[in-house]
Amino acid sequence: MTAYSAASFNPQLDLELKREVAVPPSLMWRAWTEPELLMKWFTPAPWRTTACEIDLRPGGKFRTVMEGPNGERNDSTGCFLAVEPERLLVFTDALGPGFRPTGGGFMTASVTIEPTAGGTLYTAIAFHKDEAAKTQHEEMGFHQGWRTALDQLVALVKGM
Amino acid sequence: MTAYSAASFNPQLDLELKREVAVPPSLMWRAWTEPELLMKWFTPAPWRTTACEIDLRPGGKFRTVMEGPNGERNDSTGCFLAVEPERLLVFTDALGPGFRPTGGGFMTASVTIEPTAGGTLYTAIAFHKDEAAKTQHEEMGFHQGWRTALDQLVALVKGM
Repeated sequence: MTAYSAASFNPQLDLELKREVAVPPSLMWRAWTEPELLMKWFTPAPWRTTACEIDLRPGGKFRTVMEGPNGERNDSTGCFLAVEPERLLVFTDALGPGFRPTGGGFMTASVTIEPTAGGTLYTAIAFHKDEAAKTQHEEMGFHQGWRTALDQLVALVKGM
Repeated sequence: MTAYSAASFNPQLDLELKREVAVPPSLMWRAWTEPELLMKWFTPAPWRTTACEIDLRPGGKFRTVMEGPNGERNDSTGCFLAVEPERLLVFTDALGPGFRPTGGGFMTASVTIEPTAGGTLYTAIAFHKDEAAKTQHEEMGFHQGWRTALDQLVALVKGM
C-alpha cells in the first residue's frame, strides 16, 4: 500500500501527455514549483501567466492567472493534493486552499517525473469526472496546449 | 510550515462540533477508521449505515451508505485528504477515489482528536464553499445530527 492513492489513467475519462525530455528531473521540478519559473512557461503564447502562488504541500494554494492577447483573463485557484519532490505533483481545482470545496472542479492533474538515461520521462495527466468533461477539455485544446507549454518549459530550463 | 494545510474554522462558512469525551484517542480513531465500527455509530438512528468502505490514505476511497426507515438511501463516495493516526482525519466528497473530481462536492470535513486528562477533545468541522452551503447543511440538521452520532460513537466505544 502506497502513502497515497492517485487515480490511474483511464482513456475514457482522462487526457495524457507523455514525453521523454533531455532535462534533469531536478530542473523539471523547479520549473513546476517555483512561481517565477512557472510563469515563464505555463501558458502557451501569446497568452501569458501574469501571477502565480504556490504553497507546496497538500492543501496548499496553487493559483495561476493567465491573460490573453485580447484582454482575456483566467484566474484559477486550487490546491495541491500530493507533493513528492522531484517525482510527483498532484493538484486540483475542485478544492481550494485548506481543502475547502470550490463548488466546481474541472479536473485533477498529476505530473510525474521519472529519471531516464537521457533526462526525464514526463507524464502529465488530466483526470475528469466523466467523458463529457474530458471531451470539453480536448475541444479546449488540451493536446496542443499542454504540448506547447512543455516545449516552453524545456526551452526555459535548457537556458538555465 | 506543516506537512499539509487544512483550513481553519470560519464561522461564516463552516460548522463545528467540539466536545470533550471520556474516551481515549485510540478508540476514537478506531471508531472512525474501521468500517465495522463506523457502521455502528455514524448515522443517527433510526437511519442506519448499511455499507462502508475505507482505504485509509490520501486519495483513498471513503464510501458510506445510509438508509432511512422509509426506504431512503444515501450512497456517498469521497476520498481521504489527510490521515494522521489518532490525531487527524480529513475527507471530502468533492473528490472521489484517486482524487478524481466528483463534479459536486458539498463539503470537506476534518476530525481532530486531542488527548486530554479525561479522554479526548473531539473537534469535527464541516467546511463549505460559501454561506449558502453552510446554511443548507445547518437546515439539514448538522448540529443535532453530528451530536447524536457522537453520542452513538461514545456509547459504542465505552462498551468495547
